[in-house]
Amino acid sequence: MELLEAMNWRYAAKKMNGQKVPTEKIDTILEAIRLSASSVGLQPYTVLVIDNHELKGKIHELACPQPQIVEGSHLLVFASWTAVEAEQIDAYIKLIADTRQTSVESLTPFADSIKGSLLSRTPEARAEWAARQAYIALGSGMIAAATEQVDATPMEGFNADALDKLLDLPAKGLHSVSLLALGFRDEEKDFLSKAPKVRRSREALFIELA
Amino acid sequence: MELLEAMNWRYAAKKMNGQKVPTEKIDTILEAIRLSASSVGLQPYTVLVIDNHELKGKIHELACPQPQIVEGSHLLVFASWTAVEAEQIDAYIKLIADTRQTSVESLTPFADSIKGSLLSRTPEARAEWAARQAYIALGSGMIAAATEQVDATPMEGFNADALDKLLDLPAKGLHSVSLLALGFRDEEKDFLSKAPKVRRSREALFIELA
Repeated sequence: MELLEAMNWRYAAKKMNGQKVPTEKIDTILEAIRLSASSVGLQPYTVLVIDNHELKGKIHELACPQPQIVEGSHLLVFASWTAVEAEQIDAYIKLIADTRQTSVESLTPFADSIKGSLLSRTPEARAEWAARQAYIALGSGMIAAATEQVDATPMEGFNADALDKLLDLPAKGLHSVSLLALGFRDEEKDFLSKAPKVRRSREALFIELA
Repeated sequence: MELLEAMNWRYAAKKMNGQKVPTEKIDTILEAIRLSASSVGLQPYTVLVIDNHELKGKIHELACPQPQIVEGSHLLVFASWTAVEAEQIDAYIKLIADTRQTSVESLTPFADSIKGSLLSRTPEARAEWAARQAYIALGSGMIAAATEQVDATPMEGFNADALDKLLDLPAKGLHSVSLLALGFRDEEKDFLSKAPKVRRSREALFIELA
């Protein structure tokens, strides 16, 4: 589906119908998330892909009363890095060197500029920076889902500390920042399925300086 | 252009060729930004669209040495709300009522739930929440540009306080969080134009729990 048409079609479904999302559609959504841009390309997050009824049930208890978690097919948990350190930047530089068949040494100026920019910030500012990048990926996931005619409901309303504990995220240096339930809208039961989309007008949202 | 193909095509161009981006392509990019999802739908940001050579020159001085600002066609400034207060939530509720031809009163439970969730946070946490939402819109802008074969380079490296002052953003309750230069890559001068895209593998970026 064409981009703007897909973005007009999508909304945050409040009720889903329990149907499974086909694997090839999930693959497309995950690939869009994987290809997402991030500052300096660091991708400072991990995305958990949960397709397990029992686990979704436990997560639902931490995010009541959002039925999409259990009515949906797959649940994505966007978890950003709690710490951004030299070690992760070095691993990224090695990935660039491997991908582009160049030496790590030739990338030293780039590595130094990333370290200079990021490591001079407080740990809290770095974690927040990482969370912002995860939101770009979250948005890509929503757009990709829409182009595949899959519904995607983002959720911030959950007990993040309890979810982190349930998924053992602190040990992985991760903190959950958003959920994304993937599935199919229940048109009859969702009072929003026929409601017009609400967005500020172009005149209200933009300031155009020509 | 199809989504994944477009996302593979895009990269953050380091050199642009000065060509103007046609108005209809700019319109598509802005419409994708306008249609972007945000938490509770509040769209807590404004996007400045700058197509003025002199002003881009001044901004370039605050974001050296990123030539895309002046070599690009349009510069977008994503500026999120510095304060999230009841007044803005009430204006949003009115927009919903107007769009869906319903009463403001019928939306009181929704208004109360948004206020309960957002206004209980510190002013800093609300501003950070707003910035995260702006990153979803930033990502939509990048994807829409790619589907239109327009290059889009996001930039966080700029003097945000000086830019805010230059654009009179504090008086509007806004703070700049990211730039996005729109234009066309200079394939010959940009050493990255032929470089393979670097992304973590699916195995590295995702944890799949089936």
